[in-house]
Amino acid sequence: MATLRLALAQVNPTVGDIPGNAALVRRWTRAAAGSGAHLVAFPEMMLTGYPVEDLIYRESFVAASRAALDALAAGLAEDGLGDLPVIVGYLDSDGPARIRADATPGRGPRNAAAVLHGGAVVARYFKHHLPNYGVFDEDRYFVPGADLTVVRVGGVDVALTICEDIWQAGGPFAVAREAGVGLVVNINGSPYELDKDDVRLPLVQRRAAEAGATVAYVNMIGGQDELVFDGDSMIVAADGTLLARAPQFTETMLIHDLDVPTGEADPRPVEGAMGVVRAHVSDRLTPLDPAGLAGGVVERCTAAEEIWRALVLGLHDYVEKNGFSSVVLGLSGGIDSAVVATIAVDALGPQRVTGVSMPSEYSSEHSRDDAADLAKRQGLDYRVQPIAPMVDAFLANLTLSGLAVENLQARVRGITLMALSNQEGHLVLTTGNKSELAVGYSTLYGDSVGGFNPIKDVPKTLVWKLARWRNEEALRRGETPPIPENSISKPPSAELRPGQLDSDSLPDYDVLDAILAGYVDGDLGRDGLVAAGHDPAVVDRTLRLVDIAEYKRRQSAPGPKISIKAFGRDRRLPITNRFRERDS
Amino acid sequence: MATLRLALAQVNPTVGDIPGNAALVRRWTRAAAGSGAHLVAFPEMMLTGYPVEDLIYRESFVAASRAALDALAAGLAEDGLGDLPVIVGYLDSDGPARIRADATPGRGPRNAAAVLHGGAVVARYFKHHLPNYGVFDEDRYFVPGADLTVVRVGGVDVALTICEDIWQAGGPFAVAREAGVGLVVNINGSPYELDKDDVRLPLVQRRAAEAGATVAYVNMIGGQDELVFDGDSMIVAADGTLLARAPQFTETMLIHDLDVPTGEADPRPVEGAMGVVRAHVSDRLTPLDPAGLAGGVVERCTAAEEIWRALVLGLHDYVEKNGFSSVVLGLSGGIDSAVVATIAVDALGPQRVTGVSMPSEYSSEHSRDDAADLAKRQGLDYRVQPIAPMVDAFLANLTLSGLAVENLQARVRGITLMALSNQEGHLVLTTGNKSELAVGYSTLYGDSVGGFNPIKDVPKTLVWKLARWRNEEALRRGETPPIPENSISKPPSAELRPGQLDSDSLPDYDVLDAILAGYVDGDLGRDGLVAAGHDPAVVDRTLRLVDIAEYKRRQSAPGPKISIKAFGRDRRLPITNRFRERDS
Repeated sequence: MATLRLALAQVNPTVGDIPGNAALVRRWTRAAAGSGAHLVAFPEMMLTGYPVEDLIYRESFVAASRAALDALAAGLAEDGLGDLPVIVGYLDSDGPARIRADATPGRGPRNAAAVLHGGAVVARYFKHHLPNYGVFDEDRYFVPGADLTVVRVGGVDVALTICEDIWQAGGPFAVAREAGVGLVVNINGSPYELDKDDVRLPLVQRRAAEAGATVAYVNMIGGQDELVFDGDSMIVAADGTLLARAPQFTETMLIHDLDVPTGEADPRPVEGAMGVVRAHVSDRLTPLDPAGLAGGVVERCTAAEEIWRALVLGLHDYVEKNGFSSVVLGLSGGIDSAVVATIAVDALGPQRVTGVSMPSEYSSEHSRDDAADLAKRQGLDYRVQPIAPMVDAFLANLTLSGLAVENLQARVRGITLMALSNQEGHLVLTTGNKSELAVGYSTLYGDSVGGFNPIKDVPKTLVWKLARWRNEEALRRGETPPIPENSISKPPSAELRPGQLDSDSLPDYDVLDAILAGYVDGDLGRDGLVAAGHDPAVVDRTLRLVDIAEYKRRQSAPGPKISIKAFGRDRRLPITNRFRERDS
Repeated sequence: MATLRLALAQVNPTVGDIPGNAALVRRWTRAAAGSGAHLVAFPEMMLTGYPVEDLIYRESFVAASRAALDALAAGLAEDGLGDLPVIVGYLDSDGPARIRADATPGRGPRNAAAVLHGGAVVARYFKHHLPNYGVFDEDRYFVPGADLTVVRVGGVDVALTICEDIWQAGGPFAVAREAGVGLVVNINGSPYELDKDDVRLPLVQRRAAEAGATVAYVNMIGGQDELVFDGDSMIVAADGTLLARAPQFTETMLIHDLDVPTGEADPRPVEGAMGVVRAHVSDRLTPLDPAGLAGGVVERCTAAEEIWRALVLGLHDYVEKNGFSSVVLGLSGGIDSAVVATIAVDALGPQRVTGVSMPSEYSSEHSRDDAADLAKRQGLDYRVQPIAPMVDAFLANLTLSGLAVENLQARVRGITLMALSNQEGHLVLTTGNKSELAVGYSTLYGDSVGGFNPIKDVPKTLVWKLARWRNEEALRRGETPPIPENSISKPPSAELRPGQLDSDSLPDYDVLDAILAGYVDGDLGRDGLVAAGHDPAVVDRTLRLVDIAEYKRRQSAPGPKISIKAFGRDRRLPITNRFRERDS
């Protein structure tokens, strides 16, 4: 047995910012060394950020990742950190990417992990199980690895695995047991999802049992376009005991002393589904420093707090990683824009948030008051810009009625926000919730205008819950509740015609959200929804709305594809991407 | 040997329109029977349309496809066509779709072909090679089949294969040789791509040699969102002779009498990479009807004609399949809107096309004249709507300058077109070409407004080529050239400030398009582009523009994902989709 001090660096890389990500590794490795760690592990694709999507097709990007890995190994040694083995995720390749049927079997881009030691790369591992569902498209981008890599660190055999490897039984963890390892390190780019917490811990426990070894799970944090990585790094013993767990949504290092068996002097060969490649770093561990521990099991957030923090971090990182200085949004006095403004102020501070009230002749007095009240509570930059003169100019020159007039008002507001964005450099925030997006209860190029929507995936009923939770949280902290009670309690209205209410056009949001959860998230058909107890007439009406709305979300007009790479269907690039062919 | 009269039905299904697609099969099977065919083959996923994307996750959709197949077999028999074997693509399933890591191995949705005969399904085949590159995501949606299906028709052994099966060596075609078949039928949903012609024929020839058998390749035609299927169905003998080939972009049936060997009375068992499943339809062929042939090798289109027809069909089917009655677009007098208007008139006729001239104070006299001239040549509905009053209303109420004022004009035009769309029911056509999309030379929510963009994937230099070709084609037909010569020859300008020219902001389009082809389509990095002979300074400038523009194309604001299915990254549904949970 040996006592190995393990450091898990739960950090926040940025897609494409290879130099910045490498600098993060150097900074946190120095901290790990200062804490007396024997081994430090960074997340999946740490050097490139994750997910890189179609960037893998660019040879210059792959070359930059590989070169940065070698330079990082050398840089760590220059920093005097060459003795501390570092596990880091990066993009590797041993063949061309597959863009047509004629790929080279078994070769191509690799989702890889390396062990850096003594100024060099001493071991590499290629991810074996590639996820290709939900937000993942890794069969498209990567070729799976066939060998498990085992590195001896201070006499302890450590197996390297990456993310999806832990989600499937009978893969690298089973081979790790055959290889008799003392520790399996699993590096992750695992996005936040409602209630995912409840899934991860039992999963790590199952895999620890399968490997018969301690499992260290390290995940990144941070926002990357639509994804939010929540960290939740943890260490679980072979018997399932949760030894340490990091807080979510926070850049931190989890450090824990592990009592793990040392490897045999002459390990037996393994016959299994994968080959085993062994590498050697050291046979003895340096003596333990009594200081430097930062472990323990952190208590979980409540459900509402967890979601709120995901939304705040997602917005914060979208703004910061894309280099925006400030945001602007329309403040209607309603609940959606109130919640988005509050998320923005929590993420960026009130000095970087501008709220614009854009009343029309149909805007109620209380709407304007509620918007002003919210702005005052939060101290954000508040402006009033009536839209009547612009709306009237259109009405005087075009013959419009009904829905065309309703949409016109929303579009004049959209233009106004975009004009402020162009003039003053703000990012426009969109404020439509998931329920209204689903049923198309919004105006294309109107209230759907904007570069980022913090509540795009938040159903209306959850918007209300989050607002109440945030106000209660303020009271718990002895602060003024940021959201006016009236914005939470009044019946929702688009205020595009006299006396209009959402309930004129839509089922009650409780009913609507339950049907949408079944239809959108659960892929239930009409009969399945009715069997689940929903009113058939309401189901039919809702499904019709959703089916009609589907195409409205695709605001970037499709067009016939004639080339190898049309913009649209077959070009999938991260929006947040700091990779530049030239640094100039 | 036997002489088998084979009919390949190159038809146009619609995604989700299962009853309509089944009706197409019945209609064309009747025609095949009338021509004395012994066997008729329809394209891949004929019953559901292709690609169905996330619809496969909905059990009600899978069930509808399976039920429709049985009903179709019965319906054909009711039509008196039960004696004619019909090969038809459909969606099958023998297990749940994979939405998480925990799928059942080897079971799930299937990209399938069935043989219908005597009122029943007599054989099924599951696609073996699943494409997962370019526009294809089939690893995500389907489970590959493990067996080759061979059906004896009139004594001839016919192997069934689907699309990608023909693109890879060593798969079903090699097994078909082992099984001693006389004919391999390959059913396709193969999208049009520039110069794909040059690839398909040699490919079919290679596979015919590999199978040692005649290969019949049948492909669908039609537009489906961004994809355009071009047909190009063909029959190639084992020795590589092209026996018959259908015209592109036309619904048609290719009928050819094949001299093919009959199968052995007692076929030997096959040991290979796949199992072989045999089914029996008939031992003898009905006597040949001397009439009814519709084969021959059709001459290929020229490159320009081929592209033009792809764009026209793509727009036509987007409008028709989505139920729009008419289209509207802004006519600036420039080349892009002129070409889009001409495509629209070719696709829909002039009565269904409205062109709106929206001059500003910076619009030149010749621009207005050119727009009016184009409208007159083509007989489309033409209107003039000056934008000054609306622009002035914004300028009087907001403090704007520079780019914000330029963009404002484009956005007022966008609102104007959307107002006409809401008021009169037109689909708005966008007119930005691929070059300006690539470098972001357009206004978000301005000239990028619209539901469909016929030239989204057409570089500027190709826009000019197509315009010249279309005018020459008119002269060849003895018609008036539809596009004013001035729109083709004048230097391009956005006309958003006095004297503005595209060349103020962008490299010459010849240079720009060559760099974009390398960077966007070819994934070349900066050094690769310089090595290819481009001026380093122009390359750097262009790449900066492209990288900045990337995110502008994503007009539907991203937002943090918190649920299983957020709208955006992990919900991929066809826009054109006629599937309804209930027909009402």
